[in-house]
Amino acid sequence: MATTEDVVAFLGPKASYTHQATLTRFPDSKYTVKPQTTIEDIFAAVQNGTASHGVVPFENSSNGSVVFTLDLFADLNGRYPDILVCGEVYLPVHHCLLGQATPTKVMPTPNQPRVRPQHDIKHIKQLYSHPQAWGQCKIFLSAYLKGVERQDVSSTSKAAELVAHDTKGTCAAISSKIAADLNGLDVLAEGIEDNEGNTTRFFVIRRRDALFDGTNAQVGEGTREEHCKTLVSFTVDHGAPGALADCLATFKRHDLNLTSINTRPSGEAAWHYVFFVELVGRKLPDGEGGAVNDALLELTTVAKGWRWLGSWVDELRA
Amino acid sequence: MATTEDVVAFLGPKASYTHQATLTRFPDSKYTVKPQTTIEDIFAAVQNGTASHGVVPFENSSNGSVVFTLDLFADLNGRYPDILVCGEVYLPVHHCLLGQATPTKVMPTPNQPRVRPQHDIKHIKQLYSHPQAWGQCKIFLSAYLKGVERQDVSSTSKAAELVAHDTKGTCAAISSKIAADLNGLDVLAEGIEDNEGNTTRFFVIRRRDALFDGTNAQVGEGTREEHCKTLVSFTVDHGAPGALADCLATFKRHDLNLTSINTRPSGEAAWHYVFFVELVGRKLPDGEGGAVNDALLELTTVAKGWRWLGSWVDELRA
Repeated sequence: MATTEDVVAFLGPKASYTHQATLTRFPDSKYTVKPQTTIEDIFAAVQNGTASHGVVPFENSSNGSVVFTLDLFADLNGRYPDILVCGEVYLPVHHCLLGQATPTKVMPTPNQPRVRPQHDIKHIKQLYSHPQAWGQCKIFLSAYLKGVERQDVSSTSKAAELVAHDTKGTCAAISSKIAADLNGLDVLAEGIEDNEGNTTRFFVIRRRDALFDGTNAQVGEGTREEHCKTLVSFTVDHGAPGALADCLATFKRHDLNLTSINTRPSGEAAWHYVFFVELVGRKLPDGEGGAVNDALLELTTVAKGWRWLGSWVDELRA
Repeated sequence: MATTEDVVAFLGPKASYTHQATLTRFPDSKYTVKPQTTIEDIFAAVQNGTASHGVVPFENSSNGSVVFTLDLFADLNGRYPDILVCGEVYLPVHHCLLGQATPTKVMPTPNQPRVRPQHDIKHIKQLYSHPQAWGQCKIFLSAYLKGVERQDVSSTSKAAELVAHDTKGTCAAISSKIAADLNGLDVLAEGIEDNEGNTTRFFVIRRRDALFDGTNAQVGEGTREEHCKTLVSFTVDHGAPGALADCLATFKRHDLNLTSINTRPSGEAAWHYVFFVELVGRKLPDGEGGAVNDALLELTTVAKGWRWLGSWVDELRA
């Protein structure tokens, strides 16, 4: 029987890209993977301990950051104080147009998109998908489905589920091939993403553990610094000139290589921000020193507030 | 007769928030304001000279950056090389639910949202708005219109226009009060944004002028440095450790106060980014020195590429 130690929350329903990312790290022979309706539900499940881990989409190579996830890490209402990133998964994302094929099979003759539909799609009157997917399939959609009504839903697999219940056969989903199989849908077109290398990066999250507090139990002792990454959020005193630069200089002083920076509204006042930096390196247990630990100590003197959001093994370099 | 010197492009149709922002800076007694369908159309009109200026939404106090606008400034395909920011407008945004009131006027009794509907809204089956608006009215929507189908359209005023043509009376738009008057719609609820201080910041863009190239003709000579802002984009060599930090250190060395940083996918390869920094100060004409000019000169040695995207008067401090 599964204890919560073995329960992993992901953005469902089954066959979502998050589900596929989850299975690469948490095979269902060993773990109970539990679908959730929203990304926030995943944070909540890990925070309240009903799941030991969660898997959340963080950024896409074409679309950039998933702002919903960033805002949950910013945690303006203090609901998820114990959430830490402890791993990442890169998943190539190849979208399909799923629906119900009609007997006619007329091939349109376009030139721009990378792929053409495998079936006639003139009968499609309504499209369902996750908002992120529209931005990843712009060229195909504007070539073949211009002006067709679009309906945002909570995940690409939810979109496939809804289309499977469409009795008129005029709805289609942008979703994965796996979702077609699971829901008994036809693949009307395959590989419809604009960018062949379209990849989504997911974070594995866990709850801060009282026993290991201040450490990062997920990164093995022997892992080299340059094969790890760390996420930190901070706020600055917007009245103090140079406050943001001072915070960034802290990382520079300890030779920490920043790989990305994000900015989100802080919620406390208009035009105040929460900054997120991702850097190469990892936090060691408190008292063991290390560049990340030293930089965070110094950050206390220049940032209004900051939070270590986890260290993990860099899957692109490890 | 209007010359292109007097033509200002904005995100239409009429009565959009961008239109309202445009009129505060370019009164229609003196300028010809021309509605465009997309933000990209505004960039194109200014680039090709059919408009002397454009007004584009840049960020919202609750939602953060408008990524469409950022991506147009990133200009991955080199279509808008001459676009510069030359001003900003802050516009308080108060959303309304617009539609056709039914004779019944039953008041629901909620507690959470800041406002309640002024009419029964049980007949509303479909909602139209710009994607940014959903995120600004979450509490009202989840209290009164949970599960109602949502249709993304290109602007809030376009949403009102579509709802005005709805013959069944079951559609509603999230749009402005001005759009209600213009389209003959009823205001079903007013001030439905989550955050009373909800404000959108717009950029006024112009085309780089050959005569003034290297200068910023829009910022008066006497304007104090600290009352100006500047936008710069840059890319880094992702293989070089510390490249991002080195670029940021350039601004710090010249005591330039960074007020915001944004990151977008660069499009050239997955996980390569374009960075945007906004800072206090302005670029002077070439050869006249100044901190921004000096920093940009140094940026050449550490960034892979960079672009000055304009300097303008800071409307919150000037």
